[in-house]
Formats: sequence, structure tokens, C-alpha cells
Amino acid sequence: MKTEIKVFAPATVSNVGCGFDILGFALEGIGDTIKVRKSDKKGINITKIVGADLPLSNNKNVAGIAGMVMLKHLNYEGGFEVEIEKGIAAGSGLGSSASSSAGVVVAINELLGKPCTQLALVAFAMEGEVLASGKKHADNVAPCIIGGFVLIRGYEPVDVTNLEYPKDMYCTVLHPAIEVKTIESRKLLPKHISLEDAVKQWGNVGGLVAGLYKSDYDLISRSMQDVVAEPNRSTLIPGFDAVKKAAMDAGAVGCSISGSGPTIFALSKNKEESIVVTNAMKVAYDQIGVEFSINVSQVNQNGVSEI
Amino acid sequence: MKTEIKVFAPATVSNVGCGFDILGFALEGIGDTIKVRKSDKKGINITKIVGADLPLSNNKNVAGIAGMVMLKHLNYEGGFEVEIEKGIAAGSGLGSSASSSAGVVVAINELLGKPCTQLALVAFAMEGEVLASGKKHADNVAPCIIGGFVLIRGYEPVDVTNLEYPKDMYCTVLHPAIEVKTIESRKLLPKHISLEDAVKQWGNVGGLVAGLYKSDYDLISRSMQDVVAEPNRSTLIPGFDAVKKAAMDAGAVGCSISGSGPTIFALSKNKEESIVVTNAMKVAYDQIGVEFSINVSQVNQNGVSEI
Repeated sequence: MKTEIKVFAPATVSNVGCGFDILGFALEGIGDTIKVRKSDKKGINITKIVGADLPLSNNKNVAGIAGMVMLKHLNYEGGFEVEIEKGIAAGSGLGSSASSSAGVVVAINELLGKPCTQLALVAFAMEGEVLASGKKHADNVAPCIIGGFVLIRGYEPVDVTNLEYPKDMYCTVLHPAIEVKTIESRKLLPKHISLEDAVKQWGNVGGLVAGLYKSDYDLISRSMQDVVAEPNRSTLIPGFDAVKKAAMDAGAVGCSISGSGPTIFALSKNKEESIVVTNAMKVAYDQIGVEFSINVSQVNQNGVSEI
Repeated sequence: MKTEIKVFAPATVSNVGCGFDILGFALEGIGDTIKVRKSDKKGINITKIVGADLPLSNNKNVAGIAGMVMLKHLNYEGGFEVEIEKGIAAGSGLGSSASSSAGVVVAINELLGKPCTQLALVAFAMEGEVLASGKKHADNVAPCIIGGFVLIRGYEPVDVTNLEYPKDMYCTVLHPAIEVKTIESRKLLPKHISLEDAVKQWGNVGGLVAGLYKSDYDLISRSMQDVVAEPNRSTLIPGFDAVKKAAMDAGAVGCSISGSGPTIFALSKNKEESIVVTNAMKVAYDQIGVEFSINVSQVNQNGVSEI
């Protein structure tokens, strides 16, 4: 059996407009690279983090927490050394914490001969999310582990379903160089919503899921309206309205906040249209006066993978 | 062109557990039979209603209202005589008002050579629902007109999508002989809900739609949890908890209130299982001391049809 493994853990877009806390998908090309090796020293030992100023100690690091929960669950007596190369900025809204947690638990699972199901791995990785966001949510860790488009139906117990989606779909992600802490962004959310708004939101969730199954981009587009999180959270993102308008005017299927932001994502029907949308977003954001990076990729179908 | 037509307008189950105001499906075997003939007398003239004590005058009858809105939209100078044989009790929760409205507008459309789209017919029929429920909802009229399982994504403008569903699914409907007025039942609903409950509900809506597409009965079953309407409205239905328990213990996929009640519906995986579920519900309700009728059928794939 292998004693060392290197995995790529993709960035993820969660919420996807209307699907607050229940929908997410994985991206190609952006993510963390994580090396895990068996060690004689008990427990998880994060020896190096490159590309971000994050604590190495287990109880302060999401990947450390997730890994320790997994080892405890397995009553594993040995230990693992972990090196993380962050390809996702913390506080970007692209599931940075989720990628590290998910990558570590998938890597350990591989090294131990796959004793755990994907659903169990999701549950371990979720433990890391409490540190990052104050809530045990799965809409980043589940698509990161499973790949593709994922629905989290419920949390008691966590119930994860992969969804069909049009395979030619592309996603642009524009990351303004400001940090929005998930835990702060959650405070902006209303504690109660009107039944009228709730009905709008679950109508859109139904429409988005149906649109993904039908590969009906018009239905997907009409469904990507978020009346709950976006109106509140977009206030934290300079230039959000302008860049959303630019994306939609350029033919995007939909545009909203990735997770708790500040990253803005836009879906396009295919590669050609995504290039037009990406350029339009870039031109619009150049006017805002905030540094940013922008990437475009297909949906990652595989989730965390050995490289 | 024909001058007279007779149609069957099916009963419908709306809400379907978690999908309050946005989901519905049509039933086989239960419905209104409606005769419509061209007449020299301008407008809609309801000449006879059999099987229910309902007003004949247009502004007090849902079918009259829907028909008049349609004729006005078409600037139609002539008129139609309408005879309705009610097969669905008013206030049963099986879309009684919707069937009459939907049946009349579809029949008129046929007699005029189909000038209107199905979506336009849904919009006309919805006008009748205001009289019946105080709200222009489409989760009965849309499945009645279109047939099958229907999602109403939104209402501004009305946005209707037919969904895939497992074709071997059966539905039992148990109608206690009490009347629940939709307009009264709506008053029991909370005006606001917690974000936590809302997330549960839209997770279940996403799960139900995905489950229908996947023909995944376990997912459908887990998704048929309604935290918004059922807990409040079930208090109006004597024996609801007992009959739901009996249905689920007998193997039902899910069981909830049809529309605003008092009808209780249960879904089963196939005909054989639906017979077991139906018997269990019958035995359980025999103990309650309220008269009832019970029917079992497949989902009606066609909607309003000429007979």
C-alpha cells in the first residue's frame, strides 16, 4: 500500500444563486495541492502551508480538524504528515477551507485503502467548516469531494446527491482582492424571511435542478435569482452590480456571488460564450479600482483526485 | 369546426409535501366532466352544475371567471354554454375549482381552433383561483391543463415546467368528508419562516425534483418533508397523523396533505404496493369516525382531455 499521495482538491462555487446552503459545484484548474504521507507520529501534523498565512496547529486549521475527526472515527493509532499548497485564497468564497479539509480526508482515505464512503468523508470535512464559517455546511466540501454539481438535501443526517448538468457549461470566476470572512458574511443574512420570498426561492431551486437535468439554459437562467443572500451580501462586494450587468449583457446564463463572496461567478453555455462573458466582466471590473483575478473553466467532474 | 366538446378535467394534488405553491400533479379517474358548446348568447353561460351546489353566475363561479377572462383576451364576440358535472368535491384539496376553470378554458380553446398556448390557458384558469383561494396560484390549474408532474418556478410572469417522474408511481387519495376552505386554510400559514426552516424546505424541493428525474424513490421519500404547511394545516384534518403513520408503515414513499386539505395523499412505487398502502390507510381511517372516500390511481399524463 502507498505511504504517500499528492492530490488536487478543487475550488468550489456554493449556493449557485438560489441554492443557499444546498447547492455547489467544483471547478477545474483552481484548487489546493496537498501531499499526505504516513508517519510514525500520532495524529495529523501539518508541516508546511505554502501560499497563505494559515496556522499549522490542528485545532486552528480546518484540515487538521477534519483529519483528526477522521482518525478518531477510525480509531487509527498512527499519523500523517500534511503539506498544503494553497491555490485558493482564504476568504475568497471559492471554498478555500473546504478544499483543504476535503483534500486531506480523501488523501488519508486513499492511503488507508478506502475504509470510508464519500458520504463519511463529507461528514469529516464538514467538521472543518465549523471553524471557517461557524456552521457545519456541506455545499463546498461535498462538490469538492464528489465533483460535478451537488445537492445537499438536508443535514440531519447529511444527505448528498449528485445532479446531472449540461457538460458544455463553463464558469467564470472573478475574485476581487478583498477578503470576506464567511463568519461575518453569514451575519448579514436575515434570520427570518417572508413566506412569499421563501416560495420564490424554492420555486427557483426546483427550476434550477430541473433546468440542469433538462439542459435547459433558459430555465437555468430564469431560476438563478436569489432573493435571500445576494441582496444582502452583494453590499460587501465593490462593483458587484456593474460586473453582474456586464456578464448578463454579454450573454451569461446567470451571475451571482460564489459562496459568501467576494468572488463573483457567471455561467455560460459553452467555451466560446464564456470567453465573451469573461472579457466583459474583466472590462467592467477594470473600472472599479479593486485588484482582481479572473479564471474560466468547465465544471470539474471528478472532485479531489490524485495527481 | 366543432361547435360542441366534452372534456374530462382531472383532479390534482398540489404542494406534494415540500413544494408549497410550486408543485402539483394530475390524477386519473377523479375529475370534472365538462360540456361546452358555442352559443349565440355573448359570454359564458353556465347552464347546469351537477354534483355540487355552486353558483351559476359568472362572477361567482371560478369557471365563469376564467372563461370570461379568456374571451376578453381574445376579443371574442360570441359565447359558450357550459355544463359541469362535478366529480371533485369543493373544498376537498384536490383542485376542484381548478378542474372546472381549466376544463372550460381548454374546451373553449379547442372549439376556437387552439388560438392560445397552454401557458396562456394556465394564466386564464388562474384568474378563477383568486375567487377560490384568495390567491392567483397555479399549482392545481397547471398540472390539470398540462398533465403529469408540474413545477411552477415563479409567478411574475407565471413560469411552468413539466418534470420527469417515474411512470410506475401510484397515488392514493383519502378524502375525509369535511370541507376545508382554501381561503381559511391559507390563514393558518406563517407569514414569516426562519431561514433555517426555509433552507430545509428548499433542500427538500431540490431533492424531490432530483428524485423524480432519477426515479430514486428513496430520495423522493426523504425529500417529502414539509416543515411549513403540513405542521399547521394537519391540525384541521382529524386523524391525519394516524393515517400518515399507517401509510408510511405500509411502505408508502411519502404521505402529506393534498393542497390545503383535508384530502391526504400517499405515493407508492407501483400498483401492488399502492394497494397495500390504500388498505392500510382505509383501516386506519375507519377508526377515526369521519366518513371518507378513498381512490388510487396513476399520475395522469395528459391533463384535460376530450372524451
